Amino acid sequence: MNFNEFALSKGFELLQPSTPGGAYQSVNIRGNTIYLAIQFPIKDGEYLFQGRLGKELSTADGYKAMQLAALNAVSQLHHKVGIDRLEGINHIDAYFQASETWDDGPKVVDGASELLLTLLGTKGTHSRAIFGVHHLPRNFSVGLTLTATLNR
Amino acid sequence: MNFNEFALSKGFELLQPSTPGGAYQSVNIRGNTIYLAIQFPIKDGEYLFQGRLGKELSTADGYKAMQLAALNAVSQLHHKVGIDRLEGINHIDAYFQASETWDDGPKVVDGASELLLTLLGTKGTHSRAIFGVHHLPRNFSVGLTLTATLNR
Amino acid sequence: MNFNEFALSKGFELLQPSTPGGAYQSVNIRGNTIYLAIQFPIKDGEYLFQGRLGKELSTADGYKAMQLAALNAVSQLHHKVGIDRLEGINHIDAYFQASETWDDGPKVVDGASELLLTLLGTKGTHSRAIFGVHHLPRNFSVGLTLTATLNR
Repeated sequence: MNFNEFALSKGFELLQPSTPGGAYQSVNIRGNTIYLAIQFPIKDGEYLFQGRLGKELSTADGYKAMQLAALNAVSQLHHKVGIDRLEGINHIDAYFQASETWDDGPKVVDGASELLLTLLGTKGTHSRAIFGVHHLPRNFSVGLTLTATLNR
Repeated sequence: MNFNEFALSKGFELLQPSTPGGAYQSVNIRGNTIYLAIQFPIKDGEYLFQGRLGKELSTADGYKAMQLAALNAVSQLHHKVGIDRLEGINHIDAYFQASETWDDGPKVVDGASELLLTLLGTKGTHSRAIFGVHHLPRNFSVGLTLTATLNR
Repeated sequence: MNFNEFALSKGFELLQPSTPGGAYQSVNIRGNTIYLAIQFPIKDGEYLFQGRLGKELSTADGYKAMQLAALNAVSQLHHKVGIDRLEGINHIDAYFQASETWDDGPKVVDGASELLLTLLGTKGTHSRAIFGVHHLPRNFSVGLTLTATLNR
């Protein structure tokens, strides 16, 4: 069973990675560290989960948005690096746009954390930072940046 | 004098590290880099320094909040890694919640920077980023993420 | 042609790096990774491009502000490390202060991304994260943090 099939067996179809919206790389490798550009909840080129959590979007929406951003991250790693070459995820930075009083950030970010563990197993363990930003590009409700390590 | 005693001699009692509030690791090691999850001003399970700097909390409060977040970071490194195994701190990302006009971020973040230097000496030197976020989980006034390097 | 002359030939004069405004290092090296502290649009000690994008400042201003922050980053690397010792840039975190509705973040951050490519060529390739923060120190419109890798 290849990684595409494995992902499908877990209920996730790998995505076509989006192309950079500027003069940067989606995946940059230096030494044995892999740096990913910020990923958003985009599917087949369509922008999803735009708005503010606790206002236009619910906590359940936020969970799915983070899951989709993480699926984009895994898809980038699969297409540009190969999951076989991965020692594991290092750390994720998870950002969200929310109303003043909404406070389900940790629940929502578990959408990303749990997807990484489901698809990558022990290679998916990671530390994380999480905070509410003023604004994300294109009014996306969430964004996700991560680094990972290559096998030596 | 062990590290606990050394910290005490400097006026700081190491803390019991808090457990992750989600599907992530507080400390994740890949290669010889240590990734810490975001730390907050928590002491013995109690959430402290909640609110907005320049509004409910003063600059002096913010300094103490950052110091406490950094003490949690050092305590995590002590319990999960061991200070002896540390080559040094790499970088800290320091986040704060503030009012529109409050601008003592650099003073407040020195609460973390100075604690790292006091407890870790030359192993504590670091670069830093600092910015005011819209919102931190649980209404914490400050948060702190860092990476460090293991001795080879 | 040395790096100063090369930069000038591209229309950029390297800057005197600013000194840290707190108990941290502008450049911290651990292993073969270089960690830079947050850089702002400062020139010869003068604070430029203060305010909020989409309010006091235009998108064109934001581009120049990011370019200037990136020129400070390159100048730090030149003075403290030496461009010859650089394998390349890893990743940049780009922060901006904007009005509620302004959404030209990606265009503005290209000010930093394009400067890195112009001055560093293939050593300048990088991934990036970008988000709008609530507040930057000294009311700067933009801030930039980056990591880079040393030649082995």
